[in-house]
Amino acid sequence: MRALVTGAAGFLGRHIARRFRDSGWEVTGFDMTPFSEPEVESLQGDLTSAESLERVMTGQDVVAHVGAIGDVYLAANDPILAAKVNVVGTANVAEAAAANGTRVVYASTWEVYGEPRYQPIDEEHPTGPDHPYSITKLAGESLLLAASRLRDIQVVSLRLGTAFGPGLRPNSVFRIFIDKARRGEPITIQGDGSQGRQFTHAYDIAKAFELAAAASLSGIALNVVAPETVSIKELAERVVERFPTELSFGEARPGDVPPAQVSAALATAELGWQPEIGFSEGLDDLIDSLEDESYSQ
Amino acid sequence: MRALVTGAAGFLGRHIARRFRDSGWEVTGFDMTPFSEPEVESLQGDLTSAESLERVMTGQDVVAHVGAIGDVYLAANDPILAAKVNVVGTANVAEAAAANGTRVVYASTWEVYGEPRYQPIDEEHPTGPDHPYSITKLAGESLLLAASRLRDIQVVSLRLGTAFGPGLRPNSVFRIFIDKARRGEPITIQGDGSQGRQFTHAYDIAKAFELAAAASLSGIALNVVAPETVSIKELAERVVERFPTELSFGEARPGDVPPAQVSAALATAELGWQPEIGFSEGLDDLIDSLEDESYSQ
Repeated sequence: MRALVTGAAGFLGRHIARRFRDSGWEVTGFDMTPFSEPEVESLQGDLTSAESLERVMTGQDVVAHVGAIGDVYLAANDPILAAKVNVVGTANVAEAAAANGTRVVYASTWEVYGEPRYQPIDEEHPTGPDHPYSITKLAGESLLLAASRLRDIQVVSLRLGTAFGPGLRPNSVFRIFIDKARRGEPITIQGDGSQGRQFTHAYDIAKAFELAAAASLSGIALNVVAPETVSIKELAERVVERFPTELSFGEARPGDVPPAQVSAALATAELGWQPEIGFSEGLDDLIDSLEDESYSQ
Repeated sequence: MRALVTGAAGFLGRHIARRFRDSGWEVTGFDMTPFSEPEVESLQGDLTSAESLERVMTGQDVVAHVGAIGDVYLAANDPILAAKVNVVGTANVAEAAAANGTRVVYASTWEVYGEPRYQPIDEEHPTGPDHPYSITKLAGESLLLAASRLRDIQVVSLRLGTAFGPGLRPNSVFRIFIDKARRGEPITIQGDGSQGRQFTHAYDIAKAFELAAAASLSGIALNVVAPETVSIKELAERVVERFPTELSFGEARPGDVPPAQVSAALATAELGWQPEIGFSEGLDDLIDSLEDESYSQ
């Protein structure tokens, strides 16, 4: 199996590239940032360049399309950039995949649902994103699914839960809390901290990509979200248990997404996906990894 | 009132620019194609250039953002172009509008709803576009509505019915039927012709833009769709009545949108919008206008 991973220098892309490699696949990573990873070829390029994508897609059996403006605050500050990378970039991926008969597994997000109309949210739930990040991610997903109908291309979209694990970017809530607590600085929760998240470990997300890449189903979106809901306050408390420091509350950030309970029953039925790493184990693992150079950026 | 109209050289943009001008507004039209229209300034430029938009938005009270890849078949053949113009272009409009305090009235489409879950479709109905045209138009709408919440910008999105009227582009179903029938060539209906459309006259659409431009409501999408449903077969039969020729049936085109009954009750309540031109009158008017040089392209 020959696999391309876009965004391979990033948090999730790197986990996915490693998993594909460890399964014996021939892996090429495509990213604006060069990276070094044993037995993964690093190709530097920009998703907004159709020509670069056409070139790197040649001969690929599958592409894990993970590359994106994935930082929600960057997307809010620069929606034009988010539109270019997440929508035009994904249209470029669809075009290159169609030209090469490459199967696409797309990194979508649970945030495409917007305000819950019922819970738990399954894949039949209406989509209604209201933030530049989730709006542009949904547009990319929709273009890929349209291409699976209008053109001869195989597509599975994975609507991922809030990801965590080794290599998480420094401005994620996990890293902010842990980094401050380790330095003995106070932790400030934005809002009342009651908003829950189904934190889903990068290891389990990479497994979902592998299952979806090797499967034959197409034209479908699947929730890939761990079942356990943990509030931001609980996360902060767990970090403070490990590195005692002061905990306080501040103003909510605009654009923060309201919580919703999301069901991954369809991913279990269609792909046999089951998350293996719970929140507690994953958090300990993440804190330990911050000592480990291999994931630092 | 100073108004900018994007896509002013196109079918709907020209109607809207004329209506704004006839209301005594100072109107600038922005389009890739230069055009000539009395008392409307023509500025040539590209929606994908943030710099051009920033420049033309300066001092504008309102922008009617109509410019887009509006040809659904072009969007299907070149989704990358549709993503650039309809999504990045609209993100550029949002940015320029925010920088200049310009109110935005956006040309969205009833096609954003996708497969109907109930009818008539109101604005609470879930969106689920499945075609590159409607996917990219919805992404543009969503980015504008997000900007109305996250930034200080006023936005009304008008979800337009299938537009018709003088100046319609030559590859629209109206023009294809009329042009063939006038030449005595047979008319071929793609599919069985039973699919209904709520043809909405460009005059009434321009009126909705004027009402929305002058209103103060913001952060809302409104259906602007005439109530009468006419099937493609009925349209063809009406054309054949006027220019007798043979009528036959062919294969449905991929990407054709299924019909749905859409309600404009909210536009009536919020803007006082009521369509004035029915299908029959509008069709006669369109046929007559094809003799008239002023709308030919």
